[in-house]
Amino acid sequence: MNKARITDKISAAEKALAGDNVYAVTDANVFDLYPSLFAGVRHTVIGAGEKYKTLATVGVIIEDMVEAGCDRQTTLVAVGGGVTGDTAGYAAASFMRGVKWINVPTTLLAMVDSGIGGKTGVDVGGYKNVAGAFHMPDGVIVCRDFLRTLPEREWLCGCGEMVKHALLDKDIYAETVKNIDDLLSRGKSAGRLIEMSVRYKESVTEADFREGGLRKRLNAGHTVGHAVERLDGFRLSHGEYVALGLRAEAGMFADELDKDYYSSVCDMCRKVCRHRFPLLDIADITATARTDKKNTRGNIVIELPLGGGRVKEKTLSPEEFERRLSACLSAL
Amino acid sequence: MNKARITDKISAAEKALAGDNVYAVTDANVFDLYPSLFAGVRHTVIGAGEKYKTLATVGVIIEDMVEAGCDRQTTLVAVGGGVTGDTAGYAAASFMRGVKWINVPTTLLAMVDSGIGGKTGVDVGGYKNVAGAFHMPDGVIVCRDFLRTLPEREWLCGCGEMVKHALLDKDIYAETVKNIDDLLSRGKSAGRLIEMSVRYKESVTEADFREGGLRKRLNAGHTVGHAVERLDGFRLSHGEYVALGLRAEAGMFADELDKDYYSSVCDMCRKVCRHRFPLLDIADITATARTDKKNTRGNIVIELPLGGGRVKEKTLSPEEFERRLSACLSAL
Repeated sequence: MNKARITDKISAAEKALAGDNVYAVTDANVFDLYPSLFAGVRHTVIGAGEKYKTLATVGVIIEDMVEAGCDRQTTLVAVGGGVTGDTAGYAAASFMRGVKWINVPTTLLAMVDSGIGGKTGVDVGGYKNVAGAFHMPDGVIVCRDFLRTLPEREWLCGCGEMVKHALLDKDIYAETVKNIDDLLSRGKSAGRLIEMSVRYKESVTEADFREGGLRKRLNAGHTVGHAVERLDGFRLSHGEYVALGLRAEAGMFADELDKDYYSSVCDMCRKVCRHRFPLLDIADITATARTDKKNTRGNIVIELPLGGGRVKEKTLSPEEFERRLSACLSAL
Repeated sequence: MNKARITDKISAAEKALAGDNVYAVTDANVFDLYPSLFAGVRHTVIGAGEKYKTLATVGVIIEDMVEAGCDRQTTLVAVGGGVTGDTAGYAAASFMRGVKWINVPTTLLAMVDSGIGGKTGVDVGGYKNVAGAFHMPDGVIVCRDFLRTLPEREWLCGCGEMVKHALLDKDIYAETVKNIDDLLSRGKSAGRLIEMSVRYKESVTEADFREGGLRKRLNAGHTVGHAVERLDGFRLSHGEYVALGLRAEAGMFADELDKDYYSSVCDMCRKVCRHRFPLLDIADITATARTDKKNTRGNIVIELPLGGGRVKEKTLSPEEFERRLSACLSAL
């Protein structure tokens, strides 16, 4: 697996797009901000936002590629956030049963998380990421200068996953606890924390490409987070739902966690997501969590970071899940 | 790779459908003919015919599977023809980034060709098989009794690919030349010829899963065949277009072929497809052939069976392709 190239300069992305037999996929936001990147490059501009992360968009990309004369030797270069990378990566996995691709993440979330590790896919019928492929990019180019144009909401979104990484790795934890306010205000510690997060995500996905074991821990916060995100209609950013999920899942097992650790988890998560837990029916959250990919045979699985980089996998019956979530939410 | 189980009895399919955590996908034709097969099995019935071989159908299957409570341990069982197997196989490759699947082909084409070898996919924007995955089934169950209800057009369709296999393998060639009339009239030699075709397809795809080399020869007849099929609006069956394609591609290089061999190729192909080559603009055929997956950088590749199981790959510029095709069609 090639390690991501981490740089500040956007010229690294320009160079990838200038390659031979390249087809670019980007979203409307990136295209509007950086139109010159795509001058003279065959490309598709997809809509920006989760609602375009669909099979229909994959179809548009693939049809455009056929009509642009792409072939099995074409390299797809995705330039954009998580939606663009996931959708274009899945198009690359599918186009003529698989072509090479390079990911150029332009959002914090995509840089530290979704853009690393080869999980591609789209939503179907409102269910997140239920269609996709494991399709490792041939290169990931992280140009931090793209972050200069990143809206605040998207910054918080990436911070949610960075806090998750902090709960999974003790070095990142130590740095993040110390610099959480600086990170949130885009201070000078951000560059280094981004690099730590990228390398952590790489190390986990490299060790466990198909999510048999180690990689499962990256689902921390996501069992509750995904369900709430869906039921809440994607009102907040993904990372904010992850922060809510991390806090709720820790709360569900607060009795098993070190008190100081638990309180610092709550503190960091509250800083990333200042919103209250949405007022949703807990039975609906449970029903939605049961449809989560990582769950088997009707049970619900939670990856619980214990602090110090240790993680425990919890398998709960729907009743147990509902009981614990209900107890923890009423205590919030 | 598990070898296909070849039997007459449909009970073998029933047994697969009775497995644990199974989700069935079938088409409207099969469901109407064999409704009891699906009693008590979670299933999706897709439309019958190439026009349903789309990303939208994949979306329907995946959404149904989520809502039926399927998970990563689910085995998808496809029961139907090539469209069903290709579409459902791609859904299996994509659902939660890949679940196991078993293919139960019910048409002659699917038994001897499309159902074997793990090439799955759908059409996009009218372009055939441009989105898909290599996703080997965990089992293929060939129940020849399904063929009792197969319409004549579909029988011819399978015979087109069986004749292609005959041109690629000298043992099958010898048997097919001898029994072509019996095969076309569904005589007693059919069972054995089907088995030979299945085993041939298995041996080629096993030796070369990702189509780097050997498997490419299975594209014989398909460069012209696919293009004509598309331009002619899928009026005839796929196998008939393959027969037209095999004859045209042989005709384009008739000067390089043994005369007796060439004449027996023409004879078998004419028996499979009694229709004349459609009246199409040769420039359109050329332009369409250029979009074919197996072509690189604007050139057009033809896999030419030379007889005796030998195959030569021909790479032609569009101009050369057009010249040869034009010369051979005016001589037909």
